[in-house]
Amino acid sequence: MQTEYSESFQGRLRSMLSPQTVAVVGASNNTEKLGYHVMKSLFRGGFPGRIIPVNPGSDSVLGLPAFQSLSACEQPVDLVIVVVPSGLVLSVLQEAADLDVRGLVLITAGFKEIDDPAGEKLQSTARELARSKGLPVIGPNTFGAVNLRAGLNATFTPEFSNLKAGDISLVSQSGGIAHLLAFLAENQGVGMGKVIGLGNRLTVDFADMVRYLADDPETSVIAMYLEGVDNPRSLIAAAGEVRGRKPIIAYKAGDSGGGDQVSRSHTGSLAGNKALYQGAFRQAGIHPARSSQELLDLARTFRVCPRLGGPRIAVLSGQAGPNMTALDVLEAEGLTLAQFGRSTRKKIHELLPPLALRDNPVDMGPAWYSTEAVQGIVGAVLEDSGVDGILVLTMYASANREVLPGLTDFFLNWGQKKPLITCFLSPKGIWDEPLAALEEQKGIVNLPTPEQAAQAMAGLWKHSLS
Amino acid sequence: MQTEYSESFQGRLRSMLSPQTVAVVGASNNTEKLGYHVMKSLFRGGFPGRIIPVNPGSDSVLGLPAFQSLSACEQPVDLVIVVVPSGLVLSVLQEAADLDVRGLVLITAGFKEIDDPAGEKLQSTARELARSKGLPVIGPNTFGAVNLRAGLNATFTPEFSNLKAGDISLVSQSGGIAHLLAFLAENQGVGMGKVIGLGNRLTVDFADMVRYLADDPETSVIAMYLEGVDNPRSLIAAAGEVRGRKPIIAYKAGDSGGGDQVSRSHTGSLAGNKALYQGAFRQAGIHPARSSQELLDLARTFRVCPRLGGPRIAVLSGQAGPNMTALDVLEAEGLTLAQFGRSTRKKIHELLPPLALRDNPVDMGPAWYSTEAVQGIVGAVLEDSGVDGILVLTMYASANREVLPGLTDFFLNWGQKKPLITCFLSPKGIWDEPLAALEEQKGIVNLPTPEQAAQAMAGLWKHSLS
Repeated sequence: MQTEYSESFQGRLRSMLSPQTVAVVGASNNTEKLGYHVMKSLFRGGFPGRIIPVNPGSDSVLGLPAFQSLSACEQPVDLVIVVVPSGLVLSVLQEAADLDVRGLVLITAGFKEIDDPAGEKLQSTARELARSKGLPVIGPNTFGAVNLRAGLNATFTPEFSNLKAGDISLVSQSGGIAHLLAFLAENQGVGMGKVIGLGNRLTVDFADMVRYLADDPETSVIAMYLEGVDNPRSLIAAAGEVRGRKPIIAYKAGDSGGGDQVSRSHTGSLAGNKALYQGAFRQAGIHPARSSQELLDLARTFRVCPRLGGPRIAVLSGQAGPNMTALDVLEAEGLTLAQFGRSTRKKIHELLPPLALRDNPVDMGPAWYSTEAVQGIVGAVLEDSGVDGILVLTMYASANREVLPGLTDFFLNWGQKKPLITCFLSPKGIWDEPLAALEEQKGIVNLPTPEQAAQAMAGLWKHSLS
Repeated sequence: MQTEYSESFQGRLRSMLSPQTVAVVGASNNTEKLGYHVMKSLFRGGFPGRIIPVNPGSDSVLGLPAFQSLSACEQPVDLVIVVVPSGLVLSVLQEAADLDVRGLVLITAGFKEIDDPAGEKLQSTARELARSKGLPVIGPNTFGAVNLRAGLNATFTPEFSNLKAGDISLVSQSGGIAHLLAFLAENQGVGMGKVIGLGNRLTVDFADMVRYLADDPETSVIAMYLEGVDNPRSLIAAAGEVRGRKPIIAYKAGDSGGGDQVSRSHTGSLAGNKALYQGAFRQAGIHPARSSQELLDLARTFRVCPRLGGPRIAVLSGQAGPNMTALDVLEAEGLTLAQFGRSTRKKIHELLPPLALRDNPVDMGPAWYSTEAVQGIVGAVLEDSGVDGILVLTMYASANREVLPGLTDFFLNWGQKKPLITCFLSPKGIWDEPLAALEEQKGIVNLPTPEQAAQAMAGLWKHSLS
């Protein structure tokens, strides 16, 4: 069952995810059909190419002329999205293969994941057909695929198009987790590139996506959610091939015995032992995440931060409490508080009033009103050769409103010499703009809590050691 | 240094936090002064009583007539907020005591927390003075205190008044962490009751606040953030006295050696060993939290959920992936998957189509379009005597938009027979209203991720065992 990775397979994958023309087989005007939601998604995404609804029972779908079949379209089709019942899938696949389309997103369920040998058999037959033609098929049993830079929302969820376009790409075995991560990303203002639901992985598996995304100039970080992998060796091999080109982070669920049972029914594979996977993944340079939120935090961190040259961290804050919580995490994860050099200490003593806490961790609270002082302290710490990474933690408090806007230009121009992770938190609307500006410029990663910021620094340290 | 807990001390504490008249000593028109921000906060909170600015250098502050001194007000004052420099604090304290005010919020810093013996001495003198008069003093070195039900924002941060009024009360040793938790609560739509910053704890310590909040009819859950406690026995004793009346949750930072150093400088106390505290806390019925976010998640959960009668959990979802991640957490925390009884299985088999995953965990995805089926499944599981607690995890996906609105009435009327924790997540704006309605009615706790929902169920289990 080894998939062949010919150049043309990868070329087809690329084309199908940046298509000129998309056909929706099973497009529907009926709002209770997924074929309706898929059409809405394509519209909502603002797809700039041609959309062709295929439905033998309709003359038009959502205002577009509909065709009786794929072959009736009489023009080249790059991507075919399939939402017909499973009994019709083999004939659609055959037709698509005959027309030499680039590839398919097979949303239809009722394959290997169901509690019936017929599902397994259908999947096996469909796979043989697709493989014999070298046809990339994402799915079956998937929500679909999104390419935000191409305006392609080939899913049954129009709201994926609400996402900010970015360069973190997600490959998920589970549609539920892909939706979860997308909505967390939206809430936290995180930009995404591709969001791909692999489902039962007919001919497109994690290994294929790793190769594709490693080559994709619009992707900086590859984030994956896995339950079971039929062919872990192929994923390890693919990760090894592209090692060092961009960070790969994997959140692997299915530790529990119960989880195995779910996974078997969910996307038709055994989840297997998480510890075994983690060891193999680490060796292949795949960084493990332990939760959905951590997957997102680490993707954002690895996207922005250079490697951590050592474990010595400086903690600068606008209040002492957040420092304490971050220190607890840093220490538990084996990182240490940096000892400042003489010139750093001198500079900080000049800039902070007497009696303030001026050694690492530094409480910059007393300098709230002076952007110059805060910039001077952060700058001195960045230059200190005894400091490997920096956390800056500041909760909004009315009197310190100007602290973040005052640091924006500084952060944008500091050159990312060392990893810098922040937690600037304000009520809605106050620091949204400066934070969005920083995020856009790749200058900074700002995480939701001090503990998450410290945890991400620890993740970066482990990643830097690998 | 044992504080005396006379009835009048608690009575004064109650009065000062639900005051009729508030004086601000150090009120200012200068936007760079905390005395300006405190006045803004009182206005923003819509304080319904009388506000009296005291400033010998001004005739009026923000449009209100200002007085030269506290005694010049010539009327009873319940709460005095102090924002003058530390050198003036003793005379203000003496004046307040002579006028028999109910209590003070002493925002001014420069006491035990500074790197100078004069600070320690000032604190000690001020404490003797306040204690000799039985005067509750919150602070010094605090952001202040908020009572959302009384429209009282006695802090330097007007945005605390953006919080939704609720019945989770927070007592924090750190201003930074109180701000963090308040903004997380605002973002996550969580209602808060009192938010109190204890700072250096002149005469009001955690023990006093535990007694006060245990008696407070507007507080359902007491959440605390601690670094060090000068007198842990008094806190343990207070928690023991009020044990069983309402849940108490404590997030204790300061595990690390570095943390001890910060805490000494931060609010003038040693952080001490977290493990020791946790043992003592558990014995007193204080539940530990391990992060800011978990403190909030547990407070919301304990507020709503009855005790968990056993470790057998049902997991119902709209997608299989979230189930897997929740199962991993449940298993790691010692909870188990419930075995459904015969009638539950029969009911689920009737309501879900064949081939769907119908044992625990149940994937209700195939029933998305049928509110009746989803209600039937959840109802059957609630009635199953083999089920102790229930997780319901559903990510929005366009086609399932009506699932949550369809469950709202059901959830509101189900009578909270067993703990039920959900993770319903949608893009902004889609499920906000039904979720807010459920939160208001105390019917449900909806957490941000499936992993957090499972973690909160595990916390509830530990809490139920204590």
